[in-house]
Amino acid sequence: MENEVFRNDRFAKYIGAEVLEAKPGYAVAEMKITENHMNGLSLVQGGAIFTLADYAFAAASNCGGNITLGINACISYLKSPQGSRLTAVAKEVHSGRKISHYEVEVTDENGEPVALVHITGYRK
Amino acid sequence: MENEVFRNDRFAKYIGAEVLEAKPGYAVAEMKITENHMNGLSLVQGGAIFTLADYAFAAASNCGGNITLGINACISYLKSPQGSRLTAVAKEVHSGRKISHYEVEVTDENGEPVALVHITGYRK
Amino acid sequence: MENEVFRNDRFAKYIGAEVLEAKPGYAVAEMKITENHMNGLSLVQGGAIFTLADYAFAAASNCGGNITLGINACISYLKSPQGSRLTAVAKEVHSGRKISHYEVEVTDENGEPVALVHITGYRK
Amino acid sequence: MENEVFRNDRFAKYIGAEVLEAKPGYAVAEMKITENHMNGLSLVQGGAIFTLADYAFAAASNCGGNITLGINACISYLKSPQGSRLTAVAKEVHSGRKISHYEVEVTDENGEPVALVHITGYRK
Repeated sequence: MENEVFRNDRFAKYIGAEVLEAKPGYAVAEMKITENHMNGLSLVQGGAIFTLADYAFAAASNCGGNITLGINACISYLKSPQGSRLTAVAKEVHSGRKISHYEVEVTDENGEPVALVHITGYRK
Repeated sequence: MENEVFRNDRFAKYIGAEVLEAKPGYAVAEMKITENHMNGLSLVQGGAIFTLADYAFAAASNCGGNITLGINACISYLKSPQGSRLTAVAKEVHSGRKISHYEVEVTDENGEPVALVHITGYRK
Repeated sequence: MENEVFRNDRFAKYIGAEVLEAKPGYAVAEMKITENHMNGLSLVQGGAIFTLADYAFAAASNCGGNITLGINACISYLKSPQGSRLTAVAKEVHSGRKISHYEVEVTDENGEPVALVHITGYRK
Repeated sequence: MENEVFRNDRFAKYIGAEVLEAKPGYAVAEMKITENHMNGLSLVQGGAIFTLADYAFAAASNCGGNITLGINACISYLKSPQGSRLTAVAKEVHSGRKISHYEVEVTDENGEPVALVHITGYRK
């Protein structure tokens, strides 16, 4: 749909991230872990985890015709993921007229927390 | 070399990031911008910019046999990049026995600042 | 008690912050808002909100004889507080051997969210 | 002056912070360290350091009649301060129409870096 610009995210597709659910203020994205996501230590690269979280944020905040751009984002790495799949759940924490705050939790296949990401958006 | 684990970063390679220079506490990484880096608004996806910055951090902090893991990272998006290339320069701001702080500046082909990333590392 | 070093926090006392409850990984702190907490726009100064949150983190992470130092902290300001009292609830999100992650929510007298603070600690 | 609202910051005054220099996009603030700034470990409380940095940001961003509110702030603690005085220098990193990014460096009496703070502001 024309008001779901996040569906056209080339980078998210390129790395294998997929939005499973999206409504204003809430979204779920998933990514199957492959060799292409590994860093030099054979751990999932922080950028891959970050991108999945950012994609969930984009889906939650750009639903319904809104255009929200990320202003900044802070990621905390909690533990290395186990299993073959990462899931990111983005929830709006608070939203003003222009500024919105989202929290995204990334979990692994066992449901263990992998990263916590706080993203601040600016509504155009 | 065996003490340059960042050379084996599959994810960085996959998205086209390359380390141009690396010494302890300092590194430069570069990425040619392609269609694969675009988000749904045809801007470079935040995750692509973040990954480039994170890769420069990894190169600077994992040089010389050290293994440093990112604990957390904060990215501020300054402006959308122009041109066809992004460059990330990572510099150590301070380093204690276990904890180190890096600042990474990402600029576009015109030398304009695109993002500022602060990364905290933990030396194993 | 000698293992509750946060009880001796002079700065927290000076600005009127008080720990109501503290156990490992969880604490509640409170502060009555006074004229002394105002910034130049007659809003509660960000530093006062931050300090209350940091104090709750210190109580939760320094309980039971542990010494945990903050490495970094990110605060997001959600809305201006109403009423005469702020409450900060600190919860451990994840804890490794040395590194721990806390989330602190600050609410006003009406229970409305005022700030969200993520703090990373290092256990000595 | 009426366009220097930061001069009326009650909390900054209360904890002993003072603006030494302020122009649009740049400011310097200072604080004499006293017993009142100590935490339970007899180190300068993170909230005191944060408040000084935030005050320098407010001075730099609210000069010349602008009103800029902090949206979020990330502080990294580099090392414990030595000596009897802290200095915070705030510099604008980038400024758009509504959103601005500042970096504040806090140093101790020996000129050693104590904390690095990144603050994002929203111009009303």
